[in-house]
Amino acid sequence: MADASILSPAPQLLSKTHCFGGEVQFYRHASTACQCDMTFSVFIPPQAAQGSVPVLYYLSGLTCSAENFTTKAGAQRYASHHGLMLVAPDTSPRGEEVPDDERSWDFAKGAGFYVDATEAPWAQHYRMYSYVTDELPQLVEGYFPADTSRQGIMGHSMGGHGALVCALRNPERYRSVSALAPIVAPMRCPWGEKAFSHYLGSDRETWKTYDASELVKSAHFGGHILIDQGDADSFLMEQLKPELFEAACEEAQQLLTLRLQPGYDHSYYFIASFMEDHIQHHAMALID
Amino acid sequence: MADASILSPAPQLLSKTHCFGGEVQFYRHASTACQCDMTFSVFIPPQAAQGSVPVLYYLSGLTCSAENFTTKAGAQRYASHHGLMLVAPDTSPRGEEVPDDERSWDFAKGAGFYVDATEAPWAQHYRMYSYVTDELPQLVEGYFPADTSRQGIMGHSMGGHGALVCALRNPERYRSVSALAPIVAPMRCPWGEKAFSHYLGSDRETWKTYDASELVKSAHFGGHILIDQGDADSFLMEQLKPELFEAACEEAQQLLTLRLQPGYDHSYYFIASFMEDHIQHHAMALID
Repeated sequence: MADASILSPAPQLLSKTHCFGGEVQFYRHASTACQCDMTFSVFIPPQAAQGSVPVLYYLSGLTCSAENFTTKAGAQRYASHHGLMLVAPDTSPRGEEVPDDERSWDFAKGAGFYVDATEAPWAQHYRMYSYVTDELPQLVEGYFPADTSRQGIMGHSMGGHGALVCALRNPERYRSVSALAPIVAPMRCPWGEKAFSHYLGSDRETWKTYDASELVKSAHFGGHILIDQGDADSFLMEQLKPELFEAACEEAQQLLTLRLQPGYDHSYYFIASFMEDHIQHHAMALID
Repeated sequence: MADASILSPAPQLLSKTHCFGGEVQFYRHASTACQCDMTFSVFIPPQAAQGSVPVLYYLSGLTCSAENFTTKAGAQRYASHHGLMLVAPDTSPRGEEVPDDERSWDFAKGAGFYVDATEAPWAQHYRMYSYVTDELPQLVEGYFPADTSRQGIMGHSMGGHGALVCALRNPERYRSVSALAPIVAPMRCPWGEKAFSHYLGSDRETWKTYDASELVKSAHFGGHILIDQGDADSFLMEQLKPELFEAACEEAQQLLTLRLQPGYDHSYYFIASFMEDHIQHHAMALID
């Protein structure tokens, strides 16, 4: 447990539900990083009754909250089997005080892109990178039966981008990383260019610290990275471009398993279909 | 395949999505039984590419459509493993021409109770019993790679009631039946009494043909019936009352496995947690 004196206040339990021998819990808490109330879900596996368990973070895609993953991915079955805690944060700051762009579904609320914004009016609240890599792990360590020396991170689409960036920038904090249909090169796709130009400003040099295909040139992740991508995904060609990350990993000698899955699209049916493999991938790195 | 001349028109494909090596499909069709357009979902397992596969029907609970089960229950993984087709109908007739009771969430639209209504204004459209036991299986046989000589049926809550009634009244059509948190004695709970009095009128004698705890006195189902029930289900005491069905089965020497699951509630987290066992139960009866 961390020193309670430096902890954020305890998160408020919103709901708890038995699931696969463990418990799905939803929480709300006052976030220091995002300067607003944030919600997240946790799955506590049955093994936590015997002691601290490793933690696997799941970062969601555009428009999602923690609920999509928690209700649709079927992940609890595998986390219960392996004894992993699942933690799923929201995808952006929320609340009336948080600026939004109501014309966009791919920017602002529901689309924080896991960066720390530097530009007005976004910089005050849109600090999802600090939230995911610092504040949330501290909260998890302080208030849950978690062994945060054993953390993995995964995500889908925008959340796959987030997972890759968090792991590549902090290989000492995450033992494992994987992604489903991730945005691998946000600097070179419309979703990423739109978000980064607003959140980070016009200097594209600063964008590189949040682009997995740039980061992998100098960062190195110890384990191999697992990525699954459906070949019938309507966002594949314009937004996702896994071949860019594949080339960058090859150039940098970063171990990568990229699997193109025939016929699969971008939906939670795709995510659910490969969740078992991904949780197995993390369990191999997280279970001693 | 059934004789196409007596078939309903082909259902219209609304969406199809790869999932666990098979495909989730949603359809709309003009229902003869319900005199309105109806939607349903189908999961086609990969084994259907090699020939007809057995069919497992899932009947949903109050307020649901086919979507809740299809996105949240995690059933496709197990159906794909065993080679079962999943078919999930809606819970009532739908559309502007269908009468509703807008003050109620537990009656009328979203709450057809799997009966053939006899009373005005419900009798014209609310014919979910005929729809589920006759029209839908004919449609499945006519247009899908299904072996309808091997059918099982399951359901949740109101849909658990529906599954038990369909199987007990038609043991020659269903080789297997199971239920999750079913209404087992609708004549003796507020949900059932409200619905039956409107759909079937005031003569409680006619209600017995749609009450599993009454039917089991004279009907006999060949296999054993599997029921799971969470003991933290907030509807357990007032609405579900599995002990009434347990006593009726014991009296009638009907084989029943009733499992009370500690800590589980009425939600899809409960359903997902025991879906593997239920599909295994059906697979044992349906796979030769």
